[in-house]
Amino acid sequence: MQLQEQLQDTQSRLAAFIANYFAQPLDTDETVKAATYYSINNGGKRLRPFLVYATGKMFGAALEDLDVAAAALECIHSYSLVHDDLPAMDDDDLRRGKPTCHIAFDEAQAILAGDALQTIAFELLSEHRFKVACEQQIKMINALAKAAGLQGMIGGQALDLAGTDNAISLTDLERIHRLKTGALLGAAIELGALCSPNVSDKALSALRLYAKNIGLAFQVQDDILDIEGDTESLGKPKGSDIENKKSTYPALLGLDGAKQKAHSLIQQALSALEEVEQDTEVLASLAHYIIERKY
Amino acid sequence: MQLQEQLQDTQSRLAAFIANYFAQPLDTDETVKAATYYSINNGGKRLRPFLVYATGKMFGAALEDLDVAAAALECIHSYSLVHDDLPAMDDDDLRRGKPTCHIAFDEAQAILAGDALQTIAFELLSEHRFKVACEQQIKMINALAKAAGLQGMIGGQALDLAGTDNAISLTDLERIHRLKTGALLGAAIELGALCSPNVSDKALSALRLYAKNIGLAFQVQDDILDIEGDTESLGKPKGSDIENKKSTYPALLGLDGAKQKAHSLIQQALSALEEVEQDTEVLASLAHYIIERKY
Repeated sequence: MQLQEQLQDTQSRLAAFIANYFAQPLDTDETVKAATYYSINNGGKRLRPFLVYATGKMFGAALEDLDVAAAALECIHSYSLVHDDLPAMDDDDLRRGKPTCHIAFDEAQAILAGDALQTIAFELLSEHRFKVACEQQIKMINALAKAAGLQGMIGGQALDLAGTDNAISLTDLERIHRLKTGALLGAAIELGALCSPNVSDKALSALRLYAKNIGLAFQVQDDILDIEGDTESLGKPKGSDIENKKSTYPALLGLDGAKQKAHSLIQQALSALEEVEQDTEVLASLAHYIIERKY
Repeated sequence: MQLQEQLQDTQSRLAAFIANYFAQPLDTDETVKAATYYSINNGGKRLRPFLVYATGKMFGAALEDLDVAAAALECIHSYSLVHDDLPAMDDDDLRRGKPTCHIAFDEAQAILAGDALQTIAFELLSEHRFKVACEQQIKMINALAKAAGLQGMIGGQALDLAGTDNAISLTDLERIHRLKTGALLGAAIELGALCSPNVSDKALSALRLYAKNIGLAFQVQDDILDIEGDTESLGKPKGSDIENKKSTYPALLGLDGAKQKAHSLIQQALSALEEVEQDTEVLASLAHYIIERKY
């Protein structure tokens, strides 16, 4: 199967899982339920779930366990997008060509929908009976919480906000992305591995390095696309980084420098995969895709 | 020890636990870290942690396990206050006499601090090595997630927002409070019990009924204090419910009717405690306190 087909497969699987969750009778307010479903059902690429599946499958994890881990991770990612888009944060009206949650609903619903998605992530991970030992399930919850929190995604968003309008160094920019994007991509690897009965420390540490490098490359490519992409493909206005006075790799390194940086990161990700005994073809394809994508 | 002393004991214990958490080196933005600490360190009564300790102690739970469960629960409660106070929600500038988080910091920090507190709750519950079996730890995480989510606290806040400016029935008002306040108070009982090696189903179901009734009584008393209390004791402007066009028990039942309702709920809570074999004196004192308090 080609990478695009595999990405679509992940997207369909996740969509079905989420639809199933929201099809159960929920004793709650109908509007906030709709806002929450709207926020997770957002047409995203589902890269993090894809990484969960790809890693888990390499090590023989059960598919129904990976479904839960993948959905939990995407709930965290989606909640962060809803909150980041709020007027008090990045103030974005469009995401992937659709109105953001606070535009489609209102700010209060967007705050609550984001909150609910974070809760659902931990509900899913604690509700399911995983095939692996209970201790591994606890480790999954802990890995997700750590990646999502002050020393991960939230910390990164806070540093990003603090850096807006200010000139920051390359080191600072990397710290932002390591926390804001890298932590959750790393958690995707961890969760996929923790769903599996046997993963060597050597393989896990190589995969962490892979995740770190593709995470940074993803961000560099995002910055490049903000300059070179077109609004229709991106689903958001091109040039919004410049308008929002965001620090970016092209601003710090120049456009060619940023492209070289992205390529070098992908090379490092591919080198890391060489340390893994299992078949890493899917992960290698993903690494190439990260910098070849147009949106 | 008198109830007031025991409440103070809980407050000190929790304050120390939280201070300890924030004293560890955290790789994050300093402002969001400060906003998060400010939001949890809010001078609250800590009723939910108190319930965790009281329940756990009745059944022989380890104190250091109860510390973690109590702190996790209070993180969820505190995050909900920070988000509920936001301009897009209840738009409150003061809480317990102190500026709310978005006033002391800004809206973006308040959104992130609330998000972070929710994450910390699940981080704490998954990080600690509880003395009880791993399966009970998973159940704690699940109980907290369920109580905090769409079918609990978040659902209640959404219904509350939807009910603002509208005339709602007593049944609707009870549903709001059952979800918004009751679910988390119930979780306090569950978490205290789950920290314990042996709790009978009979005792647990009696305690759930107790929690349900004091939860509702707490809310009725809050509504009464909004009319009869004074701004200084309350730490927020008296009469804010009327100004915000909130549905309240006094509005639906009259002031005397609301007082009778609160008393009747406390009587039901006390009756429920009679089904429990263990010493329930502390829980009984708490029930009386709920409707005798002035703030």
